Amino acid sequence: MVRIAIDAMGGDFGPEPIVTGVIEALKERKFTALLVGDSNAIKPLIPENLLKNVEFIEAKEVVLMGDGATDALKRKESTIYKAVELVKEKNADAVVSAGHSGATMSLATLRLGRLKGIARPAIATLMPNSNGTSTLVLDVGANVDCKAEHLFQFAIMGEAYAKEILGRKAPKIGLLSNGEEKSKGNEVSKEAYELISKLKSFNGNAEGGQVFDGSVDVVICDGFIGNILLKTSEGVAEAITKIIKKEVKRSPVAIAGSVLMKKVFSTLKKQISYDEYGGAPLLGVNGCVIISHGKSNAKAIKNAIFQAINFADSKINSVIEQEILNFTK
Amino acid sequence: MVRIAIDAMGGDFGPEPIVTGVIEALKERKFTALLVGDSNAIKPLIPENLLKNVEFIEAKEVVLMGDGATDALKRKESTIYKAVELVKEKNADAVVSAGHSGATMSLATLRLGRLKGIARPAIATLMPNSNGTSTLVLDVGANVDCKAEHLFQFAIMGEAYAKEILGRKAPKIGLLSNGEEKSKGNEVSKEAYELISKLKSFNGNAEGGQVFDGSVDVVICDGFIGNILLKTSEGVAEAITKIIKKEVKRSPVAIAGSVLMKKVFSTLKKQISYDEYGGAPLLGVNGCVIISHGKSNAKAIKNAIFQAINFADSKINSVIEQEILNFTK
Repeated sequence: MVRIAIDAMGGDFGPEPIVTGVIEALKERKFTALLVGDSNAIKPLIPENLLKNVEFIEAKEVVLMGDGATDALKRKESTIYKAVELVKEKNADAVVSAGHSGATMSLATLRLGRLKGIARPAIATLMPNSNGTSTLVLDVGANVDCKAEHLFQFAIMGEAYAKEILGRKAPKIGLLSNGEEKSKGNEVSKEAYELISKLKSFNGNAEGGQVFDGSVDVVICDGFIGNILLKTSEGVAEAITKIIKKEVKRSPVAIAGSVLMKKVFSTLKKQISYDEYGGAPLLGVNGCVIISHGKSNAKAIKNAIFQAINFADSKINSVIEQEILNFTK
Repeated sequence: MVRIAIDAMGGDFGPEPIVTGVIEALKERKFTALLVGDSNAIKPLIPENLLKNVEFIEAKEVVLMGDGATDALKRKESTIYKAVELVKEKNADAVVSAGHSGATMSLATLRLGRLKGIARPAIATLMPNSNGTSTLVLDVGANVDCKAEHLFQFAIMGEAYAKEILGRKAPKIGLLSNGEEKSKGNEVSKEAYELISKLKSFNGNAEGGQVFDGSVDVVICDGFIGNILLKTSEGVAEAITKIIKKEVKRSPVAIAGSVLMKKVFSTLKKQISYDEYGGAPLLGVNGCVIISHGKSNAKAIKNAIFQAINFADSKINSVIEQEILNFTK
């Protein structure tokens, strides 16, 4: 049975939402949960009948948001260190962490190592689109300054994820740029365009809006721009919600309308919420790592665990290594 | 009376929406419109009583979207060339163009020249925020690869625009980055952080979402990222609209709700539409230039003309030159 290590203490709200997410995941799918944390605090939260599917790994230290990511390597008693170590020792097939994402990334990269031929691991995230599916965007934070070669490797990793995990047989890869034409781009993206053109799945440059219209499956960018894209899209959605709420309050007719539209808004909320995706896979490390939002609720954790199970069940890492090899021969 | 040169033929939809925009502007504010184009086609569109406020400048060639921006300099009979030339010859105080924006930018930069101390002009655009005001973002397209020094100059130009045109007495300037902390950023943005710190109005790094929450007045980035930010925000708004429309259609109750909420949606649409702003000022050139969207309707053109009048009536260009001088002494 697949074994998922979970940092049970690292999230912003302590162990409660994380453990609840684990319980909900255990009700739906078969796996062994390795909960890393203070077992005195965690164990009482687990129903008796599920205890057979749970193992407890003692760790009392938590890497906090204010801590430096580089210190994480020295914090051998921390929940995140021990959770990653379980994967390194082949005691777990994947790890899920809602803790310090920089620390998770550093530890995963340094303790698990990188896949053969990958210079830099990347954080990939699923963004909802108006097609009702999702678009994979990478990198969204791991690497702020990238060379063309790194973007090319992200494209290979994104293509593999789209095929192996998302089940898109012929995924379309777009390179984020300031226009669709080949002539558009900055120095790095123009160089990357040439490299990524080697992939059959390359669809050319993609504009910012194409992340949300379903016209491509994967969008490639550096982590600086990826973060800005992510925060921009959240900001626009929040601003629209705020404006609607403010305007609705001004008129009893509109209030009545909004009541009748309640289901529409809840579907919209669900469709654009990251809870549905659960977490962001860290691609390019020698293992399966899912990085969850610090503010994850139980549902987000449950979905992150499902992602981890799918990741561990897939051949994505060997596909990536093979593809890199094909292009460097 | 202030004299505004208008490329009457450059827009995607020909002279009709542009001339209609001019007519509407003339009804609301006093200025002289210098319409550059084929007067046989334009003149019949103007009501008799407004003809005294209009001058016609003959030009029959139009620079098309597919034409190279660099060729624009040779196209001396084109509407956009002649419109810019009117400003150069001090025959007009400002120019509005919904034509080829690359050509407008090249011509404005090369024919009018740059302001003293400005290495690169930038296109600034107003983005709506949930505060009901707007945030100025620059650059949104002119310069894809920027050095820290260019971003610093954008900050000075943005500050001047916010003060002189938007009337913000103490504008807050944010540097677009992948996190608010000073430690965040890529190589160029970290260097720019140090330079922009010289400005009292500097508010530190700004995340993508801060463009839309009103927490800063001006957001600084290079043109590659600025374009991605713009297209991303349009894409998210479109995706949300599409999802709502699709979900509403599924249920008669929701349809009834949407009818009652009609006014809310039209206010929202108005609040996030670029028609309200009209155009993007090109800052840093020795003149007043407003670049409008090729798809501008009459309202967008009217508002672009108002922006041009305000720009021409302001002292912004001398303020920018003075500020640059203050920091290079």
